[in-house]
Amino acid sequence: HTFLSIQTVTLIPGDGIGPEISTAVMKIFEAAKAPIQWEERNVTAIKGPGGRWMIPPEAKESMNKNKIGLKGPLKTPIAAGHPSMNLLLRKTFDLYANVRPCVSIEGYKTPYTDVDLVTIRENTEGEYSGIEHLIVDGVVQSIKLITEEASRRIAEYAFEYARNNQRTSVTAVHKANIMRMSDGLFLRKCREVAENYKDVKFTEMYLDTVCLNMVQDPSHFDVLVMPNLYGDILSDLCAGLIGGLGVTPSGNIGANGVAIFESVHGTAPDIAGKDLANPTALLLSAVMMLRHMGLHGYAKKIETACFDTIRDEKVLTKDLGGNAKCSEFTADICRRVQDMD
Amino acid sequence: HTFLSIQTVTLIPGDGIGPEISTAVMKIFEAAKAPIQWEERNVTAIKGPGGRWMIPPEAKESMNKNKIGLKGPLKTPIAAGHPSMNLLLRKTFDLYANVRPCVSIEGYKTPYTDVDLVTIRENTEGEYSGIEHLIVDGVVQSIKLITEEASRRIAEYAFEYARNNQRTSVTAVHKANIMRMSDGLFLRKCREVAENYKDVKFTEMYLDTVCLNMVQDPSHFDVLVMPNLYGDILSDLCAGLIGGLGVTPSGNIGANGVAIFESVHGTAPDIAGKDLANPTALLLSAVMMLRHMGLHGYAKKIETACFDTIRDEKVLTKDLGGNAKCSEFTADICRRVQDMD
Ligand SMILES: CC(C)[C@H](C(=O)O)[C@@H](O)C(=O)O
Ligand SMILES: CC(C)[C@H](C(=O)O)[C@@H](O)C(=O)O
Repeated sequence: HTFLSIQTVTLIPGDGIGPEISTAVMKIFEAAKAPIQWEERNVTAIKGPGGRWMIPPEAKESMNKNKIGLKGPLKTPIAAGHPSMNLLLRKTFDLYANVRPCVSIEGYKTPYTDVDLVTIRENTEGEYSGIEHLIVDGVVQSIKLITEEASRRIAEYAFEYARNNQRTSVTAVHKANIMRMSDGLFLRKCREVAENYKDVKFTEMYLDTVCLNMVQDPSHFDVLVMPNLYGDILSDLCAGLIGGLGVTPSGNIGANGVAIFESVHGTAPDIAGKDLANPTALLLSAVMMLRHMGLHGYAKKIETACFDTIRDEKVLTKDLGGNAKCSEFTADICRRVQDMD
Repeated sequence: HTFLSIQTVTLIPGDGIGPEISTAVMKIFEAAKAPIQWEERNVTAIKGPGGRWMIPPEAKESMNKNKIGLKGPLKTPIAAGHPSMNLLLRKTFDLYANVRPCVSIEGYKTPYTDVDLVTIRENTEGEYSGIEHLIVDGVVQSIKLITEEASRRIAEYAFEYARNNQRTSVTAVHKANIMRMSDGLFLRKCREVAENYKDVKFTEMYLDTVCLNMVQDPSHFDVLVMPNLYGDILSDLCAGLIGGLGVTPSGNIGANGVAIFESVHGTAPDIAGKDLANPTALLLSAVMMLRHMGLHGYAKKIETACFDTIRDEKVLTKDLGGNAKCSEFTADICRRVQDMD
């Protein structure tokens, strides 16, 4: 007998198809006997003291206590001034690194078969500073803010990630030929941190060149680290290479050990509640979460079952090219997980 | 007998393989009896009065007189403070629109077969303002500058281009959800201009979504218009879809009727002078130039010959998968052009 301490994870089911795909993940975790218990919370922002939008205290406390969260898609309410929930979560928990492994899925046809890379996006500053001014009528400026501290922190995260995940190289993506000071600072910090990771190869590339090479031959890339906006772009581009947001996991790493794993697709209100959604992105995000928690055996088991179901092509949701319901797809994965025991 | 007035074009052969591929283009133009004569100029920047880097006066005068230029790749000298030649040319001639038609080339294998789109990039401001500051130690800002005037100008160019080139839609690419004021202004101008072009469909899309959809299915896109940096990224990404910078034409449209057409690949110093270079990108840029000048018949003839040579696969340069020399590839195109008469 092994004693396994059960860890509590904050579950944010989200909106639209969020609850269905969260249920699917919980079922599969149960079938795999993953030592996780869920604490469900709603994060939709409320107006706090002074009229500031904030995450409800029960959700914040749960995250601060459990440290680890799993989150489905959230719709941003259209109330005037309501912030993007994604941005608010990043801010509230200082989620400074967005990590997206993009790996070709066998059996899911795209123009590329050999994608195996990870984008690591600085998630707190850069073009997302929110500082903008009207200079004179018809002339506007937005400020891209780059700090030494945030640049070093993300570079360190990228190299640590590479080392701990058997990755061999880190590429810093930049436009320091144009934004000499800001991207220059980012790049300098990457170079400095690289000095401490001699076991990981370090290269630098212009963002435009990365985009060009990426669509010509993504197999050359490994870990990529970059400022906020470039990460926004490249992470979606790379998701496209392997089949889109429906199959791409994502993790947001924060200060103080907090981390939130999430599917980055939308809430798909048109199919919500109809048992048609594809839970793969949330499930693979949950697998990332298990790895982050050191539960590699469970991660491998669930991931293998999911990929086997997709490769098998017999029980697929509509977006994956089949006509199975979400619950049938989920049951097929559960069966495979149980068969592995 | 038809009288055709011969027009003079400023030819900037450029560095590395520039002279070879310029010679190739001139030969093909001669074979096609295109009514063009060339005025060769060197644009490599010199230090002007007050130590400012500038385009040599003979080159500037030639461009101002002829209005139309064709330019090979330029290397940026590494002398301290020497500006990027591309940036200097854009500035000198107020080349406000960078236009890149990306069309799949039959016979040249890439993962995509049905690309037929045009990226139109604002070329003068945005993230390329060059304004940056050190706020305090370790904190740097770069300013993205968006003006009403430049935004309206590029939007108008895009819609005019669509109308004059039998294109059916224009998509504005933006991140106005994040940069509400700057990208917001850009987007507003696009919307306003769209009102005057009811014959052209107008849509708006987030840059990240465009990147994702682009690699999944580029066939949905037509004309795309966007601020400077987004254009830098998307134009290279789209070039990648059709085979890279070696086969992608580019045009820079300026104020006062000035326009410079150019290949956007590098100078390839490793193969320079060896008769191994592929002149396709410069040739297709010259074809764009002919269309811009209203010489549609010559454009069609040369373009057809070039595509026929590539489709035929018998006489291809190394980068295109063959082992022909630049001069042999050129001769094959010349022969086809002459056979059309
Ligand atoms: C929803 C939006 C604010 C967000 C972003 O631009 O960062 C999204 O594109 C993402 O990547 O999470
Ligand atoms: C060379 C560089 C200044 C340039 C840019 O960033 O604009 C290049 O990438 C381009 O697209 O012409």
